[in-house]
Amino acid sequence: MEPQQVAQAFTQHFYNIFDSDRRNLEQIYRPESVLSWEGKVYQGKDAIVKHLVNLPFKNIVRKIDMDFQPTLNGIMIFIVGTLAIDGEAKALKYAQTFNLVLHQGQYLLLNDFFRLALE
Amino acid sequence: MEPQQVAQAFTQHFYNIFDSDRRNLEQIYRPESVLSWEGKVYQGKDAIVKHLVNLPFKNIVRKIDMDFQPTLNGIMIFIVGTLAIDGEAKALKYAQTFNLVLHQGQYLLLNDFFRLALE
Repeated sequence: MEPQQVAQAFTQHFYNIFDSDRRNLEQIYRPESVLSWEGKVYQGKDAIVKHLVNLPFKNIVRKIDMDFQPTLNGIMIFIVGTLAIDGEAKALKYAQTFNLVLHQGQYLLLNDFFRLALE
Repeated sequence: MEPQQVAQAFTQHFYNIFDSDRRNLEQIYRPESVLSWEGKVYQGKDAIVKHLVNLPFKNIVRKIDMDFQPTLNGIMIFIVGTLAIDGEAKALKYAQTFNLVLHQGQYLLLNDFFRLALE
């Protein structure tokens, strides 16, 4: 697969899971993964998924711009977008970056950064 | 140096140059560097610095939140912030991500992503 296809497929897959049932994110994060979420750091799949599952919202409507670049060992994906939570009219701006590392033919999500861009 | 010190020192150094004289960014980008800027891709130091030098503004006032994570081969830096251009009262939200790769004891800026988060 070309890097663009990987980036698009990963982003769509990740947000499909995130926006429907976050428990299934345990299919995506790894024991080695790290998540920086609003400035707090979560190390490893279990801590990350627990944090994300416990977030106090369910349904998200998202609009994104996605950029990607090949790296020396995988693909980086950079997202700036908006999300509207649980039917609220006001969408929140956010940024997210994924670092996928190629290992034995598979792209692993090792680094994930997320912040809302509030007023 | 600890990753946190590298991330803070790099971010401060990069924005000091960016916000004073962008021509000096040629000290930072490498022939192998790639910049995604508002969805357009610039490959290599010369193309990147030319693009940035030609941007139509001079003075920037910036406020940022910075997150970093060690990676398998370096450090990623994730920034969400605001910038006010040339004395304009309205600050613009933006996101930027740097991927620094450690090579022979030096951190090289190989991947850079930037987007304004507009209304």
